Amino acid sequence: MTFHADPAGIRPAVVIPKPGHIALVGAGPGAADLLTLRAVERLRAADVVYYDRLVSPEVLAMAGRRARRVFVGKEVGAHSWPQDRINAAITAAALSGLRVVRLKSGDPSIFGRAGEEIAAARALGITVEIIPGITAASAGAASLCRPLTERGRTERLVLATATCRPGDAWAGLDGVLQPGTMLALYMAMHRLADVQGALRAAGLGEDHAVLIAAHIGTAREAVLETTVGRLCADAAHHGIGNPAIIYVSVPKTDRTGGSGARAGAATI
Amino acid sequence: MTFHADPAGIRPAVVIPKPGHIALVGAGPGAADLLTLRAVERLRAADVVYYDRLVSPEVLAMAGRRARRVFVGKEVGAHSWPQDRINAAITAAALSGLRVVRLKSGDPSIFGRAGEEIAAARALGITVEIIPGITAASAGAASLCRPLTERGRTERLVLATATCRPGDAWAGLDGVLQPGTMLALYMAMHRLADVQGALRAAGLGEDHAVLIAAHIGTAREAVLETTVGRLCADAAHHGIGNPAIIYVSVPKTDRTGGSGARAGAATI
Repeated sequence: MTFHADPAGIRPAVVIPKPGHIALVGAGPGAADLLTLRAVERLRAADVVYYDRLVSPEVLAMAGRRARRVFVGKEVGAHSWPQDRINAAITAAALSGLRVVRLKSGDPSIFGRAGEEIAAARALGITVEIIPGITAASAGAASLCRPLTERGRTERLVLATATCRPGDAWAGLDGVLQPGTMLALYMAMHRLADVQGALRAAGLGEDHAVLIAAHIGTAREAVLETTVGRLCADAAHHGIGNPAIIYVSVPKTDRTGGSGARAGAATI
Repeated sequence: MTFHADPAGIRPAVVIPKPGHIALVGAGPGAADLLTLRAVERLRAADVVYYDRLVSPEVLAMAGRRARRVFVGKEVGAHSWPQDRINAAITAAALSGLRVVRLKSGDPSIFGRAGEEIAAARALGITVEIIPGITAASAGAASLCRPLTERGRTERLVLATATCRPGDAWAGLDGVLQPGTMLALYMAMHRLADVQGALRAAGLGEDHAVLIAAHIGTAREAVLETTVGRLCADAAHHGIGNPAIIYVSVPKTDRTGGSGARAGAATI
């Protein structure tokens, strides 16, 4: 057991990291004004910014003019950078004395592969930090003005993903949909039939409400209110794909059947 | 089923809400530079700010000078404002034509009682919005530089609370700690013996790692690395209380026993 308290206290509003540093910065959902002040400061101080496919141009524009921008995501029809190559690029830039920002959509700590980049940096003695961002589940709730939890009804929020490591099978939703749970499922539109099957296996009725928010915080933002039974057909009809969050609420008083998820009105 | 796409697209960086509007604004964990740009804009434009006990002075200082500040939280040894009184105050202020900010620590959508205030506003025809904030689980992970998920090990993040509606029993952790789960438990330090019992009931061994981050992002930030078996004794010894997040990781490959939560090194 170790114990420490940070004597430095509240972080100052403006910190310019020393050269040779890597900041894993949360880009949030896409709207530039949903960046944190600390994220903006890191972007403005950056010498080089490595960014993913889902980082919006508006967010990228917050970096200083002199910052080099390097796209490390997957282009349509092309291969993405493998994680090892990203690790090598960001650590080499830091070792050459640059202030490196690794810009990730949402929050780097949530489905952001931050651990792999942190480990690569630390193995080489490079200082690294995480600047948190607004994760998509939270941004979607705000955009819809429907909170994710409600006292007495939904007191657990589960963030899960249906995108796994290559070769791994999707773990599904076993045990997730206990009474009192709000599920926010990330990156699952490519396996919607599996999701529908998992929701049925969890005992939800065909008319249990499902809400999908796609391209949250961007010009393409779209919201689909559907049901377990019509999930695949409705999503296909409207051409809704990733990036999206699938929200399913199982309030305490409504384990199975019905669209009780909507009865509370206030939550998703 | 309904469907809509927002033609307005990316939100502009500066929007001044019309008078008579309520913005539920996420104050984040405490550090002023972890506010979003949009939250700062709402604070600067506010006529009146209703704020909770856990909102830091640094965040409150971001409001404009002319804004009236109204504390609606619980003072030590005194009663907090009941939710009905908060609802009445913010809606009365909005109906009188003021720009109202309801400032909540963390993210209003997560354990923030936002639904009750939104319903009160809408019942009176008042426009209301949510400005998302960095929730404590995410802020703690960033502060510790340890991500909450890791490909192939922890692919579900569960945010749960041990603080319930008055009179309700705590739901416990039934079904939460499936393999592949990271749990972030909010506001649970006052019932730590119950938490310890729930972790044991879930099959975790006495030496399974538990990490507590208290007063995240403030001068009092403290981190306790302990185990299921020593949880209560260690927390009492170091005087760790709410607000805090209790993190427990159950990786895919390590269902019971051992401190496998730490073996991955990268995650909490």
